[in-house]
Amino acid sequence: MTQDRFDILGIGNAMVDVVARVDESFLSRHDMHKGAMILVDEAAAEKLYTAMPPGTESSGGSAGNTCAVAAMLGARVAYLGKVADDQLGEVFAHDLRSIGVHFPSAPLAGGAPTARCLILVTPDGQRTMNTFLGACVTFGEADVDEDLIASAKVTYLEGYLFDPPAAQTAFRRAAAAAHKAGRQVALSLSDAFCVGRHRDAFRDLVSGHVDILFANEAEITSLYETNTFEEAAEAARRDVKLAALTCSEAGSTIVHGPHTEIVRAEPAHVVDTTGAGDAYAAGFLAGGPPPAVGPLRSHGLDRAAEVIGHYGARPEADLRALVAKALAGG
Amino acid sequence: MTQDRFDILGIGNAMVDVVARVDESFLSRHDMHKGAMILVDEAAAEKLYTAMPPGTESSGGSAGNTCAVAAMLGARVAYLGKVADDQLGEVFAHDLRSIGVHFPSAPLAGGAPTARCLILVTPDGQRTMNTFLGACVTFGEADVDEDLIASAKVTYLEGYLFDPPAAQTAFRRAAAAAHKAGRQVALSLSDAFCVGRHRDAFRDLVSGHVDILFANEAEITSLYETNTFEEAAEAARRDVKLAALTCSEAGSTIVHGPHTEIVRAEPAHVVDTTGAGDAYAAGFLAGGPPPAVGPLRSHGLDRAAEVIGHYGARPEADLRALVAKALAGG
Repeated sequence: MTQDRFDILGIGNAMVDVVARVDESFLSRHDMHKGAMILVDEAAAEKLYTAMPPGTESSGGSAGNTCAVAAMLGARVAYLGKVADDQLGEVFAHDLRSIGVHFPSAPLAGGAPTARCLILVTPDGQRTMNTFLGACVTFGEADVDEDLIASAKVTYLEGYLFDPPAAQTAFRRAAAAAHKAGRQVALSLSDAFCVGRHRDAFRDLVSGHVDILFANEAEITSLYETNTFEEAAEAARRDVKLAALTCSEAGSTIVHGPHTEIVRAEPAHVVDTTGAGDAYAAGFLAGGPPPAVGPLRSHGLDRAAEVIGHYGARPEADLRALVAKALAGG
Repeated sequence: MTQDRFDILGIGNAMVDVVARVDESFLSRHDMHKGAMILVDEAAAEKLYTAMPPGTESSGGSAGNTCAVAAMLGARVAYLGKVADDQLGEVFAHDLRSIGVHFPSAPLAGGAPTARCLILVTPDGQRTMNTFLGACVTFGEADVDEDLIASAKVTYLEGYLFDPPAAQTAFRRAAAAAHKAGRQVALSLSDAFCVGRHRDAFRDLVSGHVDILFANEAEITSLYETNTFEEAAEAARRDVKLAALTCSEAGSTIVHGPHTEIVRAEPAHVVDTTGAGDAYAAGFLAGGPPPAVGPLRSHGLDRAAEVIGHYGARPEADLRALVAKALAGG
């Protein structure tokens, strides 16, 4: 095994979020299913953007958010993902690098623009997402830096990366490179609809190539097509070394060999489930290499992840102080 | 006089804000004067951006903010300003047009990029601004659409536009076109340091070409180089038909011919003085053409402007509802 250079290497769709507030009628006028993420092409993205109210832009992407939070928590983090050689690509790269994330991927020149996710926030706080994949669709095997993967304790893969056409082969190559180097592979299922679009490929990856699985209740029951969360959790126990399964109101269930640990959430703290999911994975992975999961660590980091939920997908607060406070209180 | 098509036509530096939170030591390490706006060139902007923490991007510019708020309050609004043909320029244009502001200015192709203001927010809520003018420096006489000016009740000029080299002649041309069409000219002094950089030109414009003047205490005393606010207010009374002079804690003083009206502020409501200044002008101008300033209107809109202060430079809330509430409560 080569020497550790990074605690976490994230691979995901590199994108910028465009967030605007709308009322419920905006969603129905545009035939949107509240809370879901759908893929849109460039023409549809432009049409929707024209119809959207004024927004704010900030760096996003599920694994990108996880890497940003993990770096803020003090982990050594690297990230691979494809932006274009444009202003939004510069914003994405700046926001990761300025908090110390190593982001070596060369931007795509002369192709599609940097991916963006048009996020419509309704008065109930739910986020309905419309993603134009842009430059992300070119992410492929050639972008998988095997030396970088070998230097990271855990390679963390974002489920949304199943959508770009060339990324599935890149995923398998990244997982093989990590295992060849004696490293671990983590996967977040990202979205129940994404799991539904690529269920067979997800099942194959999870059973053969993943050590640590992150999923919420909807995603894990969609993956295994079970009626209950408990059945899905047992299926995950057979497939992976460790599964961290979140049920927003009920907290999370950690399945690890014969062990099952249930961590209660404090519902009052959760305001943004999307950002909290990414932050939960960050808190979990930044805590050290699995399988060193103890009650204090998981409970403290779970609480930290809930607190993080206050600050959106990319928190602005001093997370190390928040974690210290959460651990002291837990 | 041609028929009214717009209530307000704003002219200003068209820019995107990049906002990040820093601690006090960041400002001292970079030799910044807290609360001030300074101009930086492209190299300095890039160096500072590299050093800045992750940020969020949103449309800005003082007159742009005023126009956005006025449109949200129900006024018919147009805007002239120079963006580049790039992604940040698209963001700026989208954010104005999507709330109904007419923005006909053609983007600059092949020159400097869209202007940006790197804003560092310290824990006390103060904003320290570093502006790279980019495409704004090309705004000149050719960009002054005289037919558009003739169709607007008030042409509103942003003081910051004194900084780009060609804009002062554009300002005078816009003022002349407005008066030729029997319209009014409003000016916001924007910033005491900006007034200091261009005092003679400001004095000349204010005394000869401005009907309605917006300024805060620091700006108006800098303009007239007086020791007291009262002396400056008397100088403004001689120069313009109407001056709306704000003193953040003490409220605002409206000087109008022989009349002086003092409107008390409710300090607890003010959280962001930068955005509140732009919003105050919007509330004032959106209330109808001067000199129809009555106690109810000025008091109600002043209160609305304070409430608006909660929501940053470009509010996300339903402003018409807030104004109705403020008027009912006032």
